[in-house]
Amino acid sequence: MTVRVGVIGGGQLARMMIAPAVELGLDLRVLAEDEGMSAQLAATAVGDYRDLETVRAFARDVDVITFDHEHVPQQVLRALVADGVQVHPGPDALQYAQDKLVMRARLAELGVPQPDWAAVRDARDLQQFINDHGGRAVVKTPRGGYDGKGVRVVRAGLEAADWFAEVPDGEALLVEEMVSFTRELAQQIARRPSGAMVAYPVVETVQRGGVCAEVIAPAPNAAQRLVEVAEKIGRQIAEGIGVTGMLAVELFETDDERILVNELAMRPHNSGHWSQDGAVTGQFEQHLRAVADLPLGRTEPREEWTVMVNILGGPAEGTLTGRFGAAMQEHPEAKIHTYGKAPRPGRKVGHVNVAGDDLDDVVYTARAAAAHFDR
Amino acid sequence: MTVRVGVIGGGQLARMMIAPAVELGLDLRVLAEDEGMSAQLAATAVGDYRDLETVRAFARDVDVITFDHEHVPQQVLRALVADGVQVHPGPDALQYAQDKLVMRARLAELGVPQPDWAAVRDARDLQQFINDHGGRAVVKTPRGGYDGKGVRVVRAGLEAADWFAEVPDGEALLVEEMVSFTRELAQQIARRPSGAMVAYPVVETVQRGGVCAEVIAPAPNAAQRLVEVAEKIGRQIAEGIGVTGMLAVELFETDDERILVNELAMRPHNSGHWSQDGAVTGQFEQHLRAVADLPLGRTEPREEWTVMVNILGGPAEGTLTGRFGAAMQEHPEAKIHTYGKAPRPGRKVGHVNVAGDDLDDVVYTARAAAAHFDR
Repeated sequence: MTVRVGVIGGGQLARMMIAPAVELGLDLRVLAEDEGMSAQLAATAVGDYRDLETVRAFARDVDVITFDHEHVPQQVLRALVADGVQVHPGPDALQYAQDKLVMRARLAELGVPQPDWAAVRDARDLQQFINDHGGRAVVKTPRGGYDGKGVRVVRAGLEAADWFAEVPDGEALLVEEMVSFTRELAQQIARRPSGAMVAYPVVETVQRGGVCAEVIAPAPNAAQRLVEVAEKIGRQIAEGIGVTGMLAVELFETDDERILVNELAMRPHNSGHWSQDGAVTGQFEQHLRAVADLPLGRTEPREEWTVMVNILGGPAEGTLTGRFGAAMQEHPEAKIHTYGKAPRPGRKVGHVNVAGDDLDDVVYTARAAAAHFDR
Repeated sequence: MTVRVGVIGGGQLARMMIAPAVELGLDLRVLAEDEGMSAQLAATAVGDYRDLETVRAFARDVDVITFDHEHVPQQVLRALVADGVQVHPGPDALQYAQDKLVMRARLAELGVPQPDWAAVRDARDLQQFINDHGGRAVVKTPRGGYDGKGVRVVRAGLEAADWFAEVPDGEALLVEEMVSFTRELAQQIARRPSGAMVAYPVVETVQRGGVCAEVIAPAPNAAQRLVEVAEKIGRQIAEGIGVTGMLAVELFETDDERILVNELAMRPHNSGHWSQDGAVTGQFEQHLRAVADLPLGRTEPREEWTVMVNILGGPAEGTLTGRFGAAMQEHPEAKIHTYGKAPRPGRKVGHVNVAGDDLDDVVYTARAAAAHFDR
């Protein structure tokens, strides 16, 4: 029988699973939030992923459920598992991507290096943490944040007073030390239900305004020790929290040469888009193989360097595809990926991958090709 | 506006356009022969491509028409052009892929090297040609043949008596000298409506039983002269017959080191499947770019060697995807492509690409991975 993979969420990550699903002959079915989403072509249902009966009806016709995002509520996930549905990643793993306090506590148990952190219930607790960590700190809402949302740098406990006012009784905010880092890295791991894992090379991610702007794969000037430590951390977390599918571990490389875990994502991730054109097995194919419990593919880079540049916002006039001509004419080596989304300022609407031997050339070309879509 | 590309025919070539169309944000629409064809996911209409009104209705909602095969009748194609529809390749070019006698005559006009040939109307003419060419020859029906169908090696004129009996009045069969070749090659060219062209490296194709079995890219042990001659022939034909989209020129390399044109195909071609995983721009993306009149992508191989092995027939029991586990387990570097077709003996149901530095290793791995799907 053809394996039917159900994806909850119709965004660009679900969309980019279509290409490898077609080639592998997997029957990809998407529960989209709305008509006309990025993954429209594979959408077989439209509905609210927070509604158990909607999700249950969708799950009835697939062999395995996976995700475009991490927002499906725990009670929905656990009901599916109780129904006997294969869910990858499962609720036990996903909780660590859904709640940053739960994640920090678990990483502490696992002994994984991470920034100092605390659960704070009021401005006074927060002020104490700030005082103990050099006069500033990063406050995060434990749930619902992404791409810099729900994250605030503060110098006084009262700067988070509005968030404390909204925190439900008995819950807390997460506060973390403000890490002095030289750069950000990301480590991706794929893990099958059987526990088999493969690691991608650690990459450098460049954020602008809290949003991923560029990725360089593999991370330049990375000492062998750093590469090994990043992979070890990735494998330790994947196993420790029982991830199935793709795991992305966002990392800080500190001034004093430590590596600390920043965030986790349990799905294909922006930091892995380079692998579509730059690795033997792209992350979207790898995710499908992992959640369908198929043997994992090779993760080696295909060229010395691959650079991914996000297209943010997109053209003020016309469509993205209307800009293809000039971008393709000037950069015939650029691989352009579009998400079929209406452009809005700062919105991720596509990305460009370029691979080659000379890092300066590759970075230049990827930026120049992406720039055609910016204005 | 998003460019809408209409593909006539729902086979595996249309299917393999889906992945690049999704990434490029092109709106791919397929007129399939039937429900459940390989390109089902992109099918927006089902109907007979020989019926003008069916094709006309399909063409109304697209910006450009292209093809999964070369069988759309000239009168249908010419009516579309008269309607003002963009058709790539157009009828003037496609006639050379539809009728091998017309093709031979045009290649002769262009001065392209090809086997000796003649149009023969009866067994006596054929016998004369055989007598003049060492006692044997290859007879071909000018229309409708592919994958070795409509091709017969004969030693006497009477061996084609059944075909002569079926030839309509005033028409002829094609006879060609039996070329003594050391190997078969294929040269692919992509050409835009503007005339801009790019060439892929010439590849070696290995046929078994008249069907393509393996492709090695680039062709091993190819002298620089051979590479240049093959590309020159390809460009000359593409321009000479005004192809738009992908052109494949099948070639014989003879014992006496000449290169002769065997067949033409004006669409993505089995000899170019290697490029999906082995070239900067795969042939399916390139075909879409060419027919949508977008600038063409780079054609360089991404690794020293890429080998494509067809999956013919497929498993006697179970589905192709049921064999993935073992193939992927043993060959994590293999790229598997399936066509979503029911397996039948000798039918092309998928292929495997493997790339790497060591040709022996690459050939071995590609064959071994494909062999998992054979029995």
